[in-house]
Amino acid sequence: MSEQPSAPLSIWRGIVLPQWTDYNGHLNDACYMVVFSLATEQLMAGIGLDEAGRKSTGHSIFTLESHINYLLEVRQGVAIEVRTQILGADAKRLDVYHTLHATDTEPVLAANQQMLLNVDMGERRSAPFAASVLPRVQALAAQHQGLPKPKYAGRSIALPG
Amino acid sequence: MSEQPSAPLSIWRGIVLPQWTDYNGHLNDACYMVVFSLATEQLMAGIGLDEAGRKSTGHSIFTLESHINYLLEVRQGVAIEVRTQILGADAKRLDVYHTLHATDTEPVLAANQQMLLNVDMGERRSAPFAASVLPRVQALAAQHQGLPKPKYAGRSIALPG
Repeated sequence: MSEQPSAPLSIWRGIVLPQWTDYNGHLNDACYMVVFSLATEQLMAGIGLDEAGRKSTGHSIFTLESHINYLLEVRQGVAIEVRTQILGADAKRLDVYHTLHATDTEPVLAANQQMLLNVDMGERRSAPFAASVLPRVQALAAQHQGLPKPKYAGRSIALPG
Repeated sequence: MSEQPSAPLSIWRGIVLPQWTDYNGHLNDACYMVVFSLATEQLMAGIGLDEAGRKSTGHSIFTLESHINYLLEVRQGVAIEVRTQILGADAKRLDVYHTLHATDTEPVLAANQQMLLNVDMGERRSAPFAASVLPRVQALAAQHQGLPKPKYAGRSIALPG
């Protein structure tokens, strides 16, 4: 999926839509999460949990926890991309780090860490990744294992001082 | 705004809209943030930064950082409310904690901490709260000062173990 296997994957590209902007004239805080959620869907497709994979496995992914750092304003119409790094995984969880960029540029407009949980949709309970999915999760996690811990991973919110 | 001044304010009520749900049949992860963002707008109105207040002060609020814990699924059509506690404030920041509930019930469906920044929209730079706003911020912060630190405030994301 990338010529540099140790670099974060670029998995989602789009345009900042008018309905994602607000009275401040920029991407609304909630709509950063819409974009990052689309990037997670793209990642799900990459590990075999697109619509067909969800149907065949009976599994889906629920978000347990999500943390966004808003770094720069993003205006309507801008071409954007989300790059995704796997921070870790176990038998049923994926720890994922997304960064939002203007397409093909380096500045990080926002960062988002998500803890994702594999769920058996029949019982609606957590379950280990399906046999068709687990090797892909492990391969991605191994591929990203050597990457440095990103700046906005593992953060907590507090007033300065 | 409340008969129990030391309890979190209930500031936003609504219904889970069809467009907020996804292929998992529940409130989409991004749309929890839509709901919490609406609750923040309600809070902004409470401190004098509704549309008229934004116009008269030339200020608005930007979100710096946001952390959501997803605790229970929420289905379409459910009546919900967001209760808001002020964790702290300084001259230009508000540290806010929202919890999502089915209306008039106690179980926390999701928790969201947000760090909010007051912004001068002329210069698009951070600025101290306007003289009309600051006393309301300080009054809310003082009113909530004695409340216990909520369970999901100050969290960071990591795999267990």
